[in-house]
Amino acid sequence: MDIDPLAPKPPSASISETIEMVFPEDANPLGTVFGGRIMQWVDLVAAMAAHRHCRNVVVTAAIDALEFRASIHVGEYAILKAWLNRAWHTSMEVEVIVDGEDPLTGRRWRSAHAFLTFAAVDADGHPVPARPVMPQTEAEWQRYQLADQRRGQRLAARARSRGADDHESAAEAGG
Amino acid sequence: MDIDPLAPKPPSASISETIEMVFPEDANPLGTVFGGRIMQWVDLVAAMAAHRHCRNVVVTAAIDALEFRASIHVGEYAILKAWLNRAWHTSMEVEVIVDGEDPLTGRRWRSAHAFLTFAAVDADGHPVPARPVMPQTEAEWQRYQLADQRRGQRLAARARSRGADDHESAAEAGG
Amino acid sequence: MDIDPLAPKPPSASISETIEMVFPEDANPLGTVFGGRIMQWVDLVAAMAAHRHCRNVVVTAAIDALEFRASIHVGEYAILKAWLNRAWHTSMEVEVIVDGEDPLTGRRWRSAHAFLTFAAVDADGHPVPARPVMPQTEAEWQRYQLADQRRGQRLAARARSRGADDHESAAEAGG
Amino acid sequence: MDIDPLAPKPPSASISETIEMVFPEDANPLGTVFGGRIMQWVDLVAAMAAHRHCRNVVVTAAIDALEFRASIHVGEYAILKAWLNRAWHTSMEVEVIVDGEDPLTGRRWRSAHAFLTFAAVDADGHPVPARPVMPQTEAEWQRYQLADQRRGQRLAARARSRGADDHESAAEAGG
Amino acid sequence: MDIDPLAPKPPSASISETIEMVFPEDANPLGTVFGGRIMQWVDLVAAMAAHRHCRNVVVTAAIDALEFRASIHVGEYAILKAWLNRAWHTSMEVEVIVDGEDPLTGRRWRSAHAFLTFAAVDADGHPVPARPVMPQTEAEWQRYQLADQRRGQRLAARARSRGADDHESAAEAGG
Amino acid sequence: MDIDPLAPKPPSASISETIEMVFPEDANPLGTVFGGRIMQWVDLVAAMAAHRHCRNVVVTAAIDALEFRASIHVGEYAILKAWLNRAWHTSMEVEVIVDGEDPLTGRRWRSAHAFLTFAAVDADGHPVPARPVMPQTEAEWQRYQLADQRRGQRLAARARSRGADDHESAAEAGG
Repeated sequence: MDIDPLAPKPPSASISETIEMVFPEDANPLGTVFGGRIMQWVDLVAAMAAHRHCRNVVVTAAIDALEFRASIHVGEYAILKAWLNRAWHTSMEVEVIVDGEDPLTGRRWRSAHAFLTFAAVDADGHPVPARPVMPQTEAEWQRYQLADQRRGQRLAARARSRGADDHESAAEAGG
Repeated sequence: MDIDPLAPKPPSASISETIEMVFPEDANPLGTVFGGRIMQWVDLVAAMAAHRHCRNVVVTAAIDALEFRASIHVGEYAILKAWLNRAWHTSMEVEVIVDGEDPLTGRRWRSAHAFLTFAAVDADGHPVPARPVMPQTEAEWQRYQLADQRRGQRLAARARSRGADDHESAAEAGG
Repeated sequence: MDIDPLAPKPPSASISETIEMVFPEDANPLGTVFGGRIMQWVDLVAAMAAHRHCRNVVVTAAIDALEFRASIHVGEYAILKAWLNRAWHTSMEVEVIVDGEDPLTGRRWRSAHAFLTFAAVDADGHPVPARPVMPQTEAEWQRYQLADQRRGQRLAARARSRGADDHESAAEAGG
Repeated sequence: MDIDPLAPKPPSASISETIEMVFPEDANPLGTVFGGRIMQWVDLVAAMAAHRHCRNVVVTAAIDALEFRASIHVGEYAILKAWLNRAWHTSMEVEVIVDGEDPLTGRRWRSAHAFLTFAAVDADGHPVPARPVMPQTEAEWQRYQLADQRRGQRLAARARSRGADDHESAAEAGG
Repeated sequence: MDIDPLAPKPPSASISETIEMVFPEDANPLGTVFGGRIMQWVDLVAAMAAHRHCRNVVVTAAIDALEFRASIHVGEYAILKAWLNRAWHTSMEVEVIVDGEDPLTGRRWRSAHAFLTFAAVDADGHPVPARPVMPQTEAEWQRYQLADQRRGQRLAARARSRGADDHESAAEAGG
Repeated sequence: MDIDPLAPKPPSASISETIEMVFPEDANPLGTVFGGRIMQWVDLVAAMAAHRHCRNVVVTAAIDALEFRASIHVGEYAILKAWLNRAWHTSMEVEVIVDGEDPLTGRRWRSAHAFLTFAAVDADGHPVPARPVMPQTEAEWQRYQLADQRRGQRLAARARSRGADDHESAAEAGG
């Protein structure tokens, strides 16, 4: 049990893993899993890690990047692993890796990689402070620092995107 | 019918829209739609636009950014609109906006905004040239140019991410 | 926003469109979409149009006719369009067309056509007055008039059907 | 086993029943099952009856009428029963009744009633002769005769509808 | 309606049957229905029988045995039949048989057989007395007696299993 | 990669874990997960362990016992863990534990426990030799020995059940 909701926790305390078998209903005509289905699984496992980290309700604020590297076929497994990189005032960065596994040979490969931002909220959906992440290993410290760089770039990109979006909305109205 | 698979087409020729009603099964305990479900819908409508643009099989290469701005509740509609911004050799940038609509009042709001990259592939999943995008309006030209800037930033960020990822994989192996 | 819930609206104000991709899970052994799945999509898009028209909760009262003309295969799109033809005291006729689209060629064909009746209800499910439909184009006026003819035929057919149904229920009890 | 595919069979030989529990995912904000979900179940049980009657692949040609009389709530059962009324050259009329049942009291009520037309097809989807229906009870003979009346009305109504539909398509093209 | 909630009822009063068509999404790479999907259907039809027998909310306490004998392929039907064998203080044994049916020939075979235990509970989930089962035919009396033998064996096996489970949990903690 | 398909492997080499969030669509009116949904998850994670152990296609032969101890509510997690206890000629016993976890407090409890038997099959569904299980820890040896006892009891119980089942089928035919 987590008594103090703001006591820092290491990433290892909330690592979450899940395995999904790829069914025909998850696959496109090439017989490989749809991007949209992978996204759904990525969001779920990332939410689990964020949930377990801060023990608050969490909502997805953004997928900052989700890159597909190699496909997974029907009948193969998707193995997802999610962990916290850093928390800021009310938000947290979660990193997710997705591996494919061929059950008939045991071969395993990196299929996708993602960064997501979650917000901690109360029962009415209002933001609340997120528990800090306390890195312990050197790799965790490195991710902790890179998370801050990514956040800076994201805030800048979103500011540009919103501007463009407003511009476009005006264009839509005009069209 | 599209005879020449590489004849440029304007974004307006492949705009795709879809409407989804939010069911209880799509919603978290706050009664608002899960990020993962929105992602699935975003991927599907973006794939439609890419599919209609190049008339090839398309696969999701990346979600470059998907930002959630305001939630949509059970019983409300999610209205998704996707269009092409630019194509490069074998890849295409698709932009998606997601609006919420309250069916009892008609009120409508921007709920999410996304950029995705799709790759055109043949029946075996190998990359094939993507049909060029030919902007026609000023807003389309602006998006066409911003798409190239975003692509540069993405390629740089992915290079950094893969490096970090390899580093982390080594750390995992060591742990 | 719609202030007066009974102010007439033209059909164009509530036209609803949606696109569904046909997945293997939607298809029979012939590889074409099940009638039952089309029905589900037809009901959903028709309910959207009725919902947007009257801004009340709506429930399906009947499918008056749903005719399948040409099938849609796995990997193709079903494009649905629904609009209001006419409203009576508490009920509304909605017409739906379903087109198939082959994403690899852009070919499009009429796949199904339907008329449904919806009832406007309050939060307890009791009927409430439905907002009138105000046709504006000649085609809308024609549909407005045909809707009344269909309604007369429906009421007569239902009266016959209920009689037969009661008769049959008696036979069931006797058998 | 059915040796001769065209030997007449009585309706009782292919009666099909199924029971569905209404889950929250099947229900609208009123807590009652969606029309579209009922339609899906009606199509499935009707296809079973047609399948068992003619021992061919069958496809839904039309829902001729589906009338909702009383709703079914989450946690209650929908009990569906389908039987053949008559077969013509390659088509068959199937009648379906849907009852609600409250599992805590055993109370049962008529919820919906439907007539559907199915076509018998071969493995390529081409129409093949449908096995004749041989009524045996007086109630079956009555339904057999009413089926022919309904068919006459349907053919007339569809002819009118297609005319209107073509007209409207022209209007769409013109708009 | 069942007035007295503890008045004994014969097994025939709550027999429940359902039919499921096997879809591609229900099947493994061999094209036969997944064990897990059969289990889900078995639980549902058994719960219906228990629900109808005691007219209380029921929850699954255990699957005592579920044996798969012959597979069912995509496009074939699974026909499930469930009935009560015996009730004890707050629990009931339900037996389920699952048959496969080939719709193109009418051939039918035994696919699976199961015994489940259900508990009757109140609206808060607390156990309440279960209505007694009153066998009427010789076969029902035989099942009634065998049910008691199986219950004795189950209680013994569960006692052993819980012991082993606790032991193993200790080992987990120690590892 | 596993070169020799019959080289013994320890249980630890194929342990499989998965996490499922309980959604409203998984839950009964008490707000707790349906037995049938747990069964489906249990079958899937058990099949993963069997699949990874023998690197053959596997099919569920039986659920020998699945006992529910404490429920899991909507919004909580079900954490499943499966491992091999023993293999015989073509069959394997898999044990599964299901824990509930409250994401807001981290509290965790044993929810269900199961033993399943899987068969290894070739691409046509015919039985093939299953890779032996090689226990390594004392707890693994204990489970290895108990598995043989359970198998003896199961074979005896199934022989009795089939006899009763045939008897009952005769009674059905006679009724």
